[in-house]
Amino acid sequence: MSAIITLTTDFGTRDAYVAEMKGVMLEIAAAAGRAVHLVDVTHEVERHDVTEAALALDAAAPHFPPGTVHLAVVDPGVGTDRRELVVQTERAVFVGPDNGVFTPFLDGSTAWRAWELRAPEYRLPSVSRTFHGRDIFAPAAAYLATGVAADRFGPRVMDPLRLSWPTVRAVAGAVAGAVLHVDRFGNLVTSIRAETLDGLGGAPRIRLGGRRLRLVGTYGDLPPGQAGALIGSSGRLEIAVREGSAAAAFKARRGTPVVVSRSLGPATRRALGPVARRARKES
Amino acid sequence: MSAIITLTTDFGTRDAYVAEMKGVMLEIAAAAGRAVHLVDVTHEVERHDVTEAALALDAAAPHFPPGTVHLAVVDPGVGTDRRELVVQTERAVFVGPDNGVFTPFLDGSTAWRAWELRAPEYRLPSVSRTFHGRDIFAPAAAYLATGVAADRFGPRVMDPLRLSWPTVRAVAGAVAGAVLHVDRFGNLVTSIRAETLDGLGGAPRIRLGGRRLRLVGTYGDLPPGQAGALIGSSGRLEIAVREGSAAAAFKARRGTPVVVSRSLGPATRRALGPVARRARKES
Amino acid sequence: MSAIITLTTDFGTRDAYVAEMKGVMLEIAAAAGRAVHLVDVTHEVERHDVTEAALALDAAAPHFPPGTVHLAVVDPGVGTDRRELVVQTERAVFVGPDNGVFTPFLDGSTAWRAWELRAPEYRLPSVSRTFHGRDIFAPAAAYLATGVAADRFGPRVMDPLRLSWPTVRAVAGAVAGAVLHVDRFGNLVTSIRAETLDGLGGAPRIRLGGRRLRLVGTYGDLPPGQAGALIGSSGRLEIAVREGSAAAAFKARRGTPVVVSRSLGPATRRALGPVARRARKES
Repeated sequence: MSAIITLTTDFGTRDAYVAEMKGVMLEIAAAAGRAVHLVDVTHEVERHDVTEAALALDAAAPHFPPGTVHLAVVDPGVGTDRRELVVQTERAVFVGPDNGVFTPFLDGSTAWRAWELRAPEYRLPSVSRTFHGRDIFAPAAAYLATGVAADRFGPRVMDPLRLSWPTVRAVAGAVAGAVLHVDRFGNLVTSIRAETLDGLGGAPRIRLGGRRLRLVGTYGDLPPGQAGALIGSSGRLEIAVREGSAAAAFKARRGTPVVVSRSLGPATRRALGPVARRARKES
Repeated sequence: MSAIITLTTDFGTRDAYVAEMKGVMLEIAAAAGRAVHLVDVTHEVERHDVTEAALALDAAAPHFPPGTVHLAVVDPGVGTDRRELVVQTERAVFVGPDNGVFTPFLDGSTAWRAWELRAPEYRLPSVSRTFHGRDIFAPAAAYLATGVAADRFGPRVMDPLRLSWPTVRAVAGAVAGAVLHVDRFGNLVTSIRAETLDGLGGAPRIRLGGRRLRLVGTYGDLPPGQAGALIGSSGRLEIAVREGSAAAAFKARRGTPVVVSRSLGPATRRALGPVARRARKES
Repeated sequence: MSAIITLTTDFGTRDAYVAEMKGVMLEIAAAAGRAVHLVDVTHEVERHDVTEAALALDAAAPHFPPGTVHLAVVDPGVGTDRRELVVQTERAVFVGPDNGVFTPFLDGSTAWRAWELRAPEYRLPSVSRTFHGRDIFAPAAAYLATGVAADRFGPRVMDPLRLSWPTVRAVAGAVAGAVLHVDRFGNLVTSIRAETLDGLGGAPRIRLGGRRLRLVGTYGDLPPGQAGALIGSSGRLEIAVREGSAAAAFKARRGTPVVVSRSLGPATRRALGPVARRARKES
């Protein structure tokens, strides 16, 4: 079977940058007599938006076969002294800059180990200072896919950089979260997981931007043009407008606070206030 | 040889949705020890535009090798009671929602059989209500590509939904059709086939929005900026402006009437009137 | 191992045109019992911009394994009497229209041979006049990938069309070049190579649009919002604005003159004047 390598970048698809990386990987694989299957996750990450790249990987990676190599190149610090990393988890291998792009996979809950990419034999012979995606990361991904062990690339890294991830805070029967991702349709994927809702007990009350939203099962349960909340395909609470854009309707973006409660009394509302404000500030 | 699976969606390429489906398919194929070749038809179908997806498939599918599996996920009714389908034709297999997206392949002229996708063993273990592309259709496509027979997925379907397709109407030596598709260049692909023009006999007169268009062989036969008609690569009459956009020049879109005649007398014009009006209304 | 075919077009990814070509190639390869790996270079070439397609190929092709087949279809003259070509170099094979798209690979410095694509057995049985990408070029690429020799397609071509390529002119310790390509980030890739800068000796002075730019090692060496010059990943001088667009900041586009000198006296400036003006005119 082919080894699988996925690609996540902010390079877009107009320039030849992605193809340069693919050529490099195919040449290394061909030289090793190994077939690789290249799969684009996305190249439309907002320029330098490491969090968005991390979220795309977080959504995609769990669905790929064990052993898949995930290459992520959103790299504003290219050529500076930020480190280059390979991260090995139980299920997959990740290659990219040490800038937090692998945060979702560095939770305490999962076993992971990381190494620096230093071994010159696993880079291109000549390394530019502006395109490590092609010169360092793509070669590393290809060598990993052809069977080179992650610990052969360089010294262990115990402290990979982590982004401060939008999370949830539970207060007195309520949960304060935030919008994580605005998708192409304007749907708002939040940081609140389905399990959290279940934990509240009873029918949840969902509030975004001062408006109450009812929980439905799927988009088609809403009348056209109407907003509602549902458990999206990532297992997270999602705000949607049927045949419309919730992002536009609520002027919401990453970090916009979302609050879910079982029954929201004045005391709880006071307690949640600061959290909601902080979430907005961090966005 | 690898089995081939094509993908046609309105998911865009910014989010990870398409990659999630690809990961699911690659994992199922890997577990079955089978290589698959994934080919994107398009992910830029206008949101929820089932007709546009059907037209893309209609253009692409005939060029793929026999046995190709075509996955189409433009699915405004996801999670409601619309059915999930597999359609087998003599040449290919189609997987997607029962919303008319397979209309071009359900003509009386070709043999087809359809089944519902119900068998739980060919879905993901947990099926969301908002992303059947990943949880039902991608698994079905992958299992079909690994050799599972279409009739093992569920009960026969005799009445798959069909779109009312823009067609042509012949009246007294003339043919009334409509714009089917506006391509990236602003070219207008119509519902009138080359054979229909031949059937008219003599030099055809082509009219769009009150203007006469001359028939040329290829774009380069037109002076820059000038409009004309030609037989496009899909074997259909096409209206183009050289180095410009016919859609913009004629303010045309899907459904805009196009009339071709051998010689258009006043009687014919009266006879065609209602057809042209209806075509506009149905758009 | 799979044979590799890359694709470079101005077709975009919304219509099914690219998929039609891929289907054709996969069918020919399947019939020959041969696996092919299809890699998109870009389909976002500006409509009919042959130079931009040539630049994309110039960037991508050197990174692919030897024997890769590069298919380029930016073809404003489709269906007219422009020739169809296969070009063989020491490293790769190129297929596309004879309109200059292969200029970077036709330098005197490299060995190349070219042939016309005339043999009917290596085209689709029916050839449209508007889509040679699908009917002539894709089949040729697929047959080449399955092992058909380039000289079996038609007569030798000794005079393939070449674009007048933006180059550099050295005058009295200075070099006058031009912007070759504006990338997605607004970075300006110029026609001036790193070797040329080295040849100047001493610290280079870089001028664009009347402004002096300092040479840095990588984007991160610049303060946010500030402009500078660096050696980009293609080995060429590049003008960038950190976290901004140099194209916007300098109102620059392909052909905008860039001058590098060791020390720019009045005499040199006079000598360079005409070159800079000509570069602007040719853009």
